[in-house]
Amino acid sequence: MYQLYYSPSTASLAVHWMLIEIGAPFELVLTDIDAGAQKTPDYLKLNPGGVVPTLIVDGAPVLESTAILMLLAERHLDKGLAPAPGEPERAAYLQWMVYLANALMPSFRAWYYPHEPAGEAHAEVAQAAARARVEAVWDRVDAQLAAKGPFMLGERLSAVDFLATMLMRWSRNLPRQATAWPNIARYLARMRAMPSLREVHAREGLTDWIDG
Amino acid sequence: MYQLYYSPSTASLAVHWMLIEIGAPFELVLTDIDAGAQKTPDYLKLNPGGVVPTLIVDGAPVLESTAILMLLAERHLDKGLAPAPGEPERAAYLQWMVYLANALMPSFRAWYYPHEPAGEAHAEVAQAAARARVEAVWDRVDAQLAAKGPFMLGERLSAVDFLATMLMRWSRNLPRQATAWPNIARYLARMRAMPSLREVHAREGLTDWIDG
Repeated sequence: MYQLYYSPSTASLAVHWMLIEIGAPFELVLTDIDAGAQKTPDYLKLNPGGVVPTLIVDGAPVLESTAILMLLAERHLDKGLAPAPGEPERAAYLQWMVYLANALMPSFRAWYYPHEPAGEAHAEVAQAAARARVEAVWDRVDAQLAAKGPFMLGERLSAVDFLATMLMRWSRNLPRQATAWPNIARYLARMRAMPSLREVHAREGLTDWIDG
Repeated sequence: MYQLYYSPSTASLAVHWMLIEIGAPFELVLTDIDAGAQKTPDYLKLNPGGVVPTLIVDGAPVLESTAILMLLAERHLDKGLAPAPGEPERAAYLQWMVYLANALMPSFRAWYYPHEPAGEAHAEVAQAAARARVEAVWDRVDAQLAAKGPFMLGERLSAVDFLATMLMRWSRNLPRQATAWPNIARYLARMRAMPSLREVHAREGLTDWIDG
């Protein structure tokens, strides 16, 4: 039985979604970030960075949404959500997971919290720079889908799609949404039809974005 | 035979180091970033982001230093540089690889290229913010080494150590080097004695840092 410390509409969504897709038994523990629950002493013992998600696996906390997705995919390898070591898509799988985590997630953080990169006085210019970095990633993702689709690694749905789709959702408040890229738009039409993605929106009480 | 597109003293160093440690046959292709070689049309076909490293594996380019380290570790599993799926340290392995890639590498970039987050006019404040983010990661790494040492995952040397040590090297130009944290200082004394780390410094013509 997994336990997921989550807050609606945050980085925990991809993990919550994958747990539903896998059909693994899990328990949700609400960690409401609007109420600051991620900064309480008890939560910081589990997750010293004070962020969601945390997934309890065999009694121990696992952090970093990207790493949790990789761990779940390989613990439930029969669901086919990660190429096993040695399979041909393995290099692309590792590369895309790292790239989305490293290039896209910090850029979204800078857009949503634009005072962090260079202070409140320079928030506007920091936000514009963050937007440019996000859009450069969509160029790469769109090209990948054009070359390899329908999913990020080709014919197989994988953990990369859970991470990429959640991050595309995060673009909903930006001036140019990910759906402005044509191959991403086609991809999202397919992803948004997945019952498990619709289900995680329902369970987290989210009505925006899922219907475009 | 691997081919590594590299430039001395960049993110390719960890990959170069691991190739030496593994003892796998490889060929180096110098891609001198001071000369802009990473932005030539031919190189951009391999690596659309225009960065090093690129590792050619079975004829295809693999990008992202963190992903390349993970791929090499699992392609040479007999060298013991990654816990296999299902092993007890597996969750910590994935978590630390992602965390270092996601929290530390972009922060170093912001420190070394401080005009990027918010423009040239605000470079100083952006650099100070980047420094604070780097130092927060050293707090976490130092605590991990105190709790679990001697290596990042405990008794076993792993890909996490190749990534972490390279990033500690990157702190050599910051006001507070990673060695200011006592457990990191002890750890680096051990890592700097590794023949393969000394060898990669020699092969890349680097004389700084390796002797403290």
